[in-house]
Amino acid sequence: MDVSGLHVLIDPARVPPSRLATFVPAIARAGARVVQIRIKEGSARAALAYGTEVLRWARPAGLLVVVDDRVDWALALGADGVHVGQEDMPVRDVRRIAPGLLVGASAGTSDELAAALADGPDYVGIGPVFRTGSKADAGDPLGPEGLHRLSAEAGPVPVVAIGGIRPDNAAAVWATGVAGIAVIAAVAEAADPASAVRALLHARNRA
Amino acid sequence: MDVSGLHVLIDPARVPPSRLATFVPAIARAGARVVQIRIKEGSARAALAYGTEVLRWARPAGLLVVVDDRVDWALALGADGVHVGQEDMPVRDVRRIAPGLLVGASAGTSDELAAALADGPDYVGIGPVFRTGSKADAGDPLGPEGLHRLSAEAGPVPVVAIGGIRPDNAAAVWATGVAGIAVIAAVAEAADPASAVRALLHARNRA
Repeated sequence: MDVSGLHVLIDPARVPPSRLATFVPAIARAGARVVQIRIKEGSARAALAYGTEVLRWARPAGLLVVVDDRVDWALALGADGVHVGQEDMPVRDVRRIAPGLLVGASAGTSDELAAALADGPDYVGIGPVFRTGSKADAGDPLGPEGLHRLSAEAGPVPVVAIGGIRPDNAAAVWATGVAGIAVIAAVAEAADPASAVRALLHARNRA
Repeated sequence: MDVSGLHVLIDPARVPPSRLATFVPAIARAGARVVQIRIKEGSARAALAYGTEVLRWARPAGLLVVVDDRVDWALALGADGVHVGQEDMPVRDVRRIAPGLLVGASAGTSDELAAALADGPDYVGIGPVFRTGSKADAGDPLGPEGLHRLSAEAGPVPVVAIGGIRPDNAAAVWATGVAGIAVIAAVAEAADPASAVRALLHARNRA
């Protein structure tokens, strides 16, 4: 599965369940490639209900669906993949219990990247590129230069850049040659999510 | 798999990783049947490391290992089962993604029990029997009478009673005819966990 392009991370606080029916098809039409469900609070029941609604609209729209951290939710929902951070289940364990899932792994340093790559993920999420307010435990920003340096170490594994990426700084990110960009606030908190998706993708042409 | 007998719930705060090598074999020798890993905080990596250590000592001791809530952890660890609460993944979803796991479901009321039974769990955890300090969101205590009434509604499905059960009130719980008793504080916080296990099991003879 091709994970290049724009990944839009959503959660029930930023995109309430009632908005999914318009939000998900709108970002798909605007050109997003992946929607990632990232839920850090609340019950499994609520998360599964949210995920079911995401799948309901993502499937006909042709979006890939990735679940952050929870392999069991990804399996129960029939999602396409799971994204695991440095403190989540190791990629090798995910492969063992869920051989059909696409697996992305996060890295923010050269060491973390080497560890992530050793496990053979389908893609690596590298960041934070810029300062971000969406992830409390994110490290110091890499900047486009740091991103470019780390990306080179990823070799043939697709890199998805994350962290504080917005329409006005996205061109510098695409210019590093990354396969994809992942955003939280830039789309999920936008007044017009479809316009934000288009602007993030148009920035690729300016890169 | 037979889930009757004593279930001992543990977590890294009550039973630190360094104590597992003595704690787990000791409760097994004293007669416990199941050790349940119940982790509500911290990272998946830390939980999987803890669970791996539990399995390391539980397997040779012949204890069944059940994981609370996290089906993905149960699968990755190669545990015997998973226990799901009212707000966790529904039993039917667990069966679908993890057909080999023993599945227990919690119920505290007649309605919850009917919903849990409809999904065909391997056992039902019913409680709280008594007032408990170990579970903040536990409902009003059922008392042995309420437990007995609810247990009758479970039909042939084994009932494991939980909630505030100690050596000095366990006889009244066993007297209701439950297949098993689950404890947190009574063993994990005991100065002598093996003695506590023996006392909880001896209470069955007084019942």
